[in-house]
Amino acid sequence: MTKLIPSWVESANTAETDFPLNNLPYGVFSTNRLEARCGVAIGDMILDMAALEEAGLLDLGAGTLFAAPGWNAVMAAGPKVWSALRTRLTDMLAADAADQATIAPHLVPTAEARMHMPFTVAEFTDFYSGRHHATNVGTMFRGAENALPPNWLHLPIGYNGRASSVVVSGTDIRRPWGQLKSPDHDMPAFLPSRRFDIELEMGAIVGTPSDGPISVAQADQNIFGYVLLNDWSARDIQAWEYQPLGPFQAKATATTISPWIVTRAALEPFRCDTPAREFELLDHLKDAGPMLYDIDLSVTLAPEGAAPSTIARTNYNEMYYSSAQQLAHHTTSGCPMRTGDLLGSGTISGPEKENRGALLELSWGGKEPITLDTGETRSFIEDNDTLGLHGAAQGDGYKIGFGDCIGKVLPALKDPYAGT
Amino acid sequence: MTKLIPSWVESANTAETDFPLNNLPYGVFSTNRLEARCGVAIGDMILDMAALEEAGLLDLGAGTLFAAPGWNAVMAAGPKVWSALRTRLTDMLAADAADQATIAPHLVPTAEARMHMPFTVAEFTDFYSGRHHATNVGTMFRGAENALPPNWLHLPIGYNGRASSVVVSGTDIRRPWGQLKSPDHDMPAFLPSRRFDIELEMGAIVGTPSDGPISVAQADQNIFGYVLLNDWSARDIQAWEYQPLGPFQAKATATTISPWIVTRAALEPFRCDTPAREFELLDHLKDAGPMLYDIDLSVTLAPEGAAPSTIARTNYNEMYYSSAQQLAHHTTSGCPMRTGDLLGSGTISGPEKENRGALLELSWGGKEPITLDTGETRSFIEDNDTLGLHGAAQGDGYKIGFGDCIGKVLPALKDPYAGT
Repeated sequence: MTKLIPSWVESANTAETDFPLNNLPYGVFSTNRLEARCGVAIGDMILDMAALEEAGLLDLGAGTLFAAPGWNAVMAAGPKVWSALRTRLTDMLAADAADQATIAPHLVPTAEARMHMPFTVAEFTDFYSGRHHATNVGTMFRGAENALPPNWLHLPIGYNGRASSVVVSGTDIRRPWGQLKSPDHDMPAFLPSRRFDIELEMGAIVGTPSDGPISVAQADQNIFGYVLLNDWSARDIQAWEYQPLGPFQAKATATTISPWIVTRAALEPFRCDTPAREFELLDHLKDAGPMLYDIDLSVTLAPEGAAPSTIARTNYNEMYYSSAQQLAHHTTSGCPMRTGDLLGSGTISGPEKENRGALLELSWGGKEPITLDTGETRSFIEDNDTLGLHGAAQGDGYKIGFGDCIGKVLPALKDPYAGT
Repeated sequence: MTKLIPSWVESANTAETDFPLNNLPYGVFSTNRLEARCGVAIGDMILDMAALEEAGLLDLGAGTLFAAPGWNAVMAAGPKVWSALRTRLTDMLAADAADQATIAPHLVPTAEARMHMPFTVAEFTDFYSGRHHATNVGTMFRGAENALPPNWLHLPIGYNGRASSVVVSGTDIRRPWGQLKSPDHDMPAFLPSRRFDIELEMGAIVGTPSDGPISVAQADQNIFGYVLLNDWSARDIQAWEYQPLGPFQAKATATTISPWIVTRAALEPFRCDTPAREFELLDHLKDAGPMLYDIDLSVTLAPEGAAPSTIARTNYNEMYYSSAQQLAHHTTSGCPMRTGDLLGSGTISGPEKENRGALLELSWGGKEPITLDTGETRSFIEDNDTLGLHGAAQGDGYKIGFGDCIGKVLPALKDPYAGT
């Protein structure tokens, strides 16, 4: 197992920080005096990439990369630039760095920063590749004998989501209205969702575009990095709308991502295999090496004014399909993929009840409410609850953290059409 | 019924042209000497908008609108600019126009032009709001008693499509590979689609963005214009993948749109009502006036080297939900809508067999092949067939045409992974 690489930024040299020198994740931040710009987290500081570039301290021979507040230009520059950038950052920030005095003025305390979307989402696709989740939800919706659809073990099922609704951690989420039908009513009604939920997912970000079918190995190389992803879901809207064309408005209120893109390079030491399979995958989807990652994940729920309770713990290694397999499947039809495409893994549940990554599963459709540390119970999200996703890969004396993925759920608007 | 408005561009003053002065549709064109740029069709000529703007002949007080080869800047400028632009263009091109001599040098013969995507698609949503189509497909897939899902008569069902795959008329379409399962096999296989199909649709383009639920009346106002839209569909891939999350790779090869955006203003005289309903819609989806349009539509199929056969005729007035209702539904959850969002109507079939807008319906799942004018038969598309959609609203002595929406289907790649 790899060890901590020491930095002259002292706060990066602890087992507790999400952001040791081994990590170097990419975000966008602003402060009271700085407009939104690209930054790299190191301990409890952020390196101001726009300022570094302006000062002539960061020329990778790939033109201007940090003029805009987003990492799309770096992603589009390709893997050689990704690698050169990581090497340059490591050299700048390592304990024995020669140019410490010139770099230090461009560090901003994280405590002064507000985080923004780290990249422009081209399109958003959400998969359904967690086997425990698919089995649990399928059992609730269609019965145990029809839990996994016949195609599930042969391909990573996915649907297109809504890129315009992706927001960064910290953004408040307004409980949606929607058309839904109670089992005890003949007719649908337009109401605020009563079964508003989270989905604990990882998001993979496409760096290198493609314009035709690509192999799983190529797909892995095209992925730039990963974020935590909460695909907020209105289960009552979903149940009424999803047949036959899949989720639509139930998933369009918002999807929250963590503010830091953790690169594939930083996760390299934590690669692990997908699980054993009862059906061999077709050649174009076969594993081409270990392409999952050992990342501990958890979910917290904090009622208004109370401390967060941890309501679920699981691991990204529970996935049945890797992001590389999902991306390869995405291209089978010739679908063009673009820099900034975001692929949600699907909800990551584990085998036990405490491993479930959605309230729908944790409370078994509301029949078995969970109990928080405060003694309160929850079947689904209540107004003013704050939900958080947390994730880190554990190294030897350090971790590769993602930063938190947080959202507070505000009450539904009284009249959503008051302004129109 | 409104009459033809005469223009000094003589070719615009006929009953046959798609582009009389009443139309003024917006496209993007290039020629051997001109780079891609915005243009307006008038008879058999195209008005070069970039050149007009550069020459100082088109200042609408909204800044530079035609620097880029796409209509997004005009769409984002809002309804007052849309209206001012249409008025200015009508003044410039009317038979009694004073500045004919200064405008004429900026007309380019359509015969010299290649057409490009008229706008950048932000996101693409495809609906399923043709009742005859939904009933036909539902009958084939789920039996007559389950043809229309329970939600269908209460809301416009839709799913998110893939914006990166939208192409302009004239782009060749490569038959896709995909995972599919024959009814007579136990296991799926990865093969070229054998049931590749068209879907005859209209596409509505969102001009004005929104950031919360909007009314049907507001939605209608936010729509900038319409195009013909062919949602190419691999029925064998779709049948295997679509449960439970809807179509994905079956619809991601390509969607072709016609090259000219026909504005809502041009279609105003042709408004008509949605049909009588057995269930009253919920308030937020109720019709707020006539929001469909009387547009005659047809589909042609031309085998390699043969003349096109017309294989279907229908009308946009067959829709159960208008684009305004679809857009309003799209926003119910709070989903942000952006300039350049494209909404497909769903396949537009009529009550009779010859009104069906997809080969799946025309050949009843392949069981009743259709016969072309050449005597050949078709169940689905064969290699090197050219498919075309055609549409026009019929005025008094003129029509509002869309230009053709054409695509030739090339054979599948022999090995789709040869290059990776």
